[in-house]
Amino acid sequence: MSAESPQNDADVIVVGAGLAGLVAARELEAKGLSVIVCEARDRVGGRLLNEPLPIGDQVTEVGGEWLGPTQYKINALADELGLQRHATYDEGDNVIDWNGKAVRYGGAIPRVNPAVLADVGQAQLRFERMARSVDPAEPWAAKSAKRWDRQTLGSWFARNTATSGAPLMFEIAAEVIWGAEPADISLLHALAYTSAAGSFSALIDVKGGAQQERFVEGSQSVPLRLAEQLSSPLLLESPVSRIDHHEGAVSVYAGGRELTARAVIVAIPPPLTGHIDWQPLLPVNRDQLVQRIPHGAAIKCLAVYPRPFWRDDGLSGQAIDPAGPARVIYDNSPADGSCGVMLGFVVGNRARELAELEPQARQAAVLKGFVRMFGAQAAQPVAYIEQDWARERWTRGCPVCYMPPGAMTAHGAALRAPIGPIHWAGAETATRWTGYMDGAVSSGEDAANAVAAQLATALV
Amino acid sequence: MSAESPQNDADVIVVGAGLAGLVAARELEAKGLSVIVCEARDRVGGRLLNEPLPIGDQVTEVGGEWLGPTQYKINALADELGLQRHATYDEGDNVIDWNGKAVRYGGAIPRVNPAVLADVGQAQLRFERMARSVDPAEPWAAKSAKRWDRQTLGSWFARNTATSGAPLMFEIAAEVIWGAEPADISLLHALAYTSAAGSFSALIDVKGGAQQERFVEGSQSVPLRLAEQLSSPLLLESPVSRIDHHEGAVSVYAGGRELTARAVIVAIPPPLTGHIDWQPLLPVNRDQLVQRIPHGAAIKCLAVYPRPFWRDDGLSGQAIDPAGPARVIYDNSPADGSCGVMLGFVVGNRARELAELEPQARQAAVLKGFVRMFGAQAAQPVAYIEQDWARERWTRGCPVCYMPPGAMTAHGAALRAPIGPIHWAGAETATRWTGYMDGAVSSGEDAANAVAAQLATALV
Repeated sequence: MSAESPQNDADVIVVGAGLAGLVAARELEAKGLSVIVCEARDRVGGRLLNEPLPIGDQVTEVGGEWLGPTQYKINALADELGLQRHATYDEGDNVIDWNGKAVRYGGAIPRVNPAVLADVGQAQLRFERMARSVDPAEPWAAKSAKRWDRQTLGSWFARNTATSGAPLMFEIAAEVIWGAEPADISLLHALAYTSAAGSFSALIDVKGGAQQERFVEGSQSVPLRLAEQLSSPLLLESPVSRIDHHEGAVSVYAGGRELTARAVIVAIPPPLTGHIDWQPLLPVNRDQLVQRIPHGAAIKCLAVYPRPFWRDDGLSGQAIDPAGPARVIYDNSPADGSCGVMLGFVVGNRARELAELEPQARQAAVLKGFVRMFGAQAAQPVAYIEQDWARERWTRGCPVCYMPPGAMTAHGAALRAPIGPIHWAGAETATRWTGYMDGAVSSGEDAANAVAAQLATALV
Repeated sequence: MSAESPQNDADVIVVGAGLAGLVAARELEAKGLSVIVCEARDRVGGRLLNEPLPIGDQVTEVGGEWLGPTQYKINALADELGLQRHATYDEGDNVIDWNGKAVRYGGAIPRVNPAVLADVGQAQLRFERMARSVDPAEPWAAKSAKRWDRQTLGSWFARNTATSGAPLMFEIAAEVIWGAEPADISLLHALAYTSAAGSFSALIDVKGGAQQERFVEGSQSVPLRLAEQLSSPLLLESPVSRIDHHEGAVSVYAGGRELTARAVIVAIPPPLTGHIDWQPLLPVNRDQLVQRIPHGAAIKCLAVYPRPFWRDDGLSGQAIDPAGPARVIYDNSPADGSCGVMLGFVVGNRARELAELEPQARQAAVLKGFVRMFGAQAAQPVAYIEQDWARERWTRGCPVCYMPPGAMTAHGAALRAPIGPIHWAGAETATRWTGYMDGAVSSGEDAANAVAAQLATALV
């Protein structure tokens, strides 16, 4: 097909070598189309990033990392690439700081207080029921869409719980899922996101849920392997500053070069698409959407120990610490247990507060929480690793971009709708497992299919 | 003082020659500092823009235009510049489309139904009382800030009114004030904005309120006169693409040139500050704010007639048309009445819907509403003028940027706080009459004072 446009550098340019962009490039190659991938960073993977451990020869992850059993796309891709997974460590008891005391419990929701537990249960049931009525491909078409998009997840929790403990549990869950506070998020967006994952339990659970498994070689092994297998040019350190577009033709300005193609797939977080100089400007609906889909904030804080010492105590390494900067903690040790890694999530407003401290103070604050949960041994890690995604020029937040009230009903369709030769990909644009690796894969496939169909029609 | 930094092109660079930027430049000049103003467009004025009328030698306005009696800053500046004002035409009855029938009424709120009127009254009273407890300089410090920032203005209206008419009246008011739907806006932001204007009545009223007067030579005469009187270089068609910043030093890349200075005042709408390539990146709190302060959407639609014919019928030319694309209509004729100008506001979701139609269909839809309100004579204007601010590359919306829930309490302070040598101005950053010309003036003065104080300290 390239022969049809000999004046172009490629049939399709893909902007962003994260998981979605690389999957799109691979699919386009498989369809016989010529591709160039432009990546702003000096590496591939976007929000997936391995970090070598100082003990042993394993890696841990400082970006997205888990997979769940109903994430068929990422599991199939991993199988195809020959990448092994292992179960997230989930043996023994979890810990919660309850009124200043570390209390052990089993399961995803702490069983510390029957009234809170019942309250969480009834609200979750109601929420799940509402979520099932929302088609994640068109949440704005739900019968109650307008009413749900008019309120925040936070005001819904406040009105639909009777204890003070239940909204706190939901707040912590929301923070880890979206990197944002319930007060920030449209109820309709939260319902659509939940529907796209199958259920709220699927979002928060380890066993049976989104945190069930990890990649033995780290989650970045997926984009790394994809990039290795790609035969198309992959231009690193080539941020795209400008895109000129007309019917069937784009010029992409990447790191000083001008590249031409018949179509472009833009596979970067939605807010960053607004930093591109579009000539002509994108339609109002898209531009206004991009002003209304902020990135959450998340700092991943990892402490490395010679051994996962908490396992000796029958503890899973999972904890909820409402008072900590890191309110949610996981065991992030490598599959072979060659060292112990404790991972704390500092998200939402806490991430922005922590970011204002000096490095020493940040480390001290996070380790203090680890000690409160797992004892004095947690105070002296071999290494302390931090990744603040909001400080990353080419990401500007984590784990995902969400919609505040009003945005989904007014602009939701503009998130995915192609504009002439411009197509969109990325975890945010997925209609199944939105915001997850699985969604990134399906979004890349979908965009590649749409582009191929468009180019095939243009040839007729 | 320029002698202290002979290596610099100026003491201060001002980005944006809107009202705020020009006032800042003028104040800096008055303090003996050297200034360069960079403006992306080929004109000054930003959201203030005159349009010559096809009949007579007068202008009308397609951007911000009104002033109110408590807007001391803009009134004082206008006096100083010798710019005359005239009363907004406000004689006779207003019209509302009530269940498909044009009904005449007096005052700001239609007296068509006593139950609705009482309902609007009690809700407005409650809203005004809440607003008075919010200090617009630090809304996040209000006692109920968290609770109010967790909900939207839309969910508050829904819960605090008993009729279906009252929320509709508030919706239309909110649309004209913010160019957004009540569902989009944080209740706390709306309260702070109201408090900054003095009262909700001050926002919506003609007599005694923000719409009381107009400039005889059009509102753009203010920035035009300021630019004339400026002795500093004013670089038009010089969009700022990148700013490097260190303590006491900035390099501003504007239209291909690199300009250096000791400080910079950035006086452009907040979302556009995110399009600048900041080296180094701005702090997380600022970057996350910019992802959460979208511009409203507004199209100003003006029909020009040989005479303001509605005045013959004892009509003010003011109308509320819930069914129209233009839900709010004003008489926008020039002071000398040399022709009649009818102005329709198409805002919020309606602006984005209208933008998707072809020009002919847009005109037909707007005129149809004018006819419904003012009779068949409205069908045949001499000219039809449209200004869609969301399509403007260097504005991206109108009339103002607002905050969705969660943003004010988490990031509000970052809207104004200087970052080293970087200072912010613009109507959005004002603490009195936020979003209005008056706020633009005070924000420019405040930024100039802060910069002068900073540079004076640096000299010691």
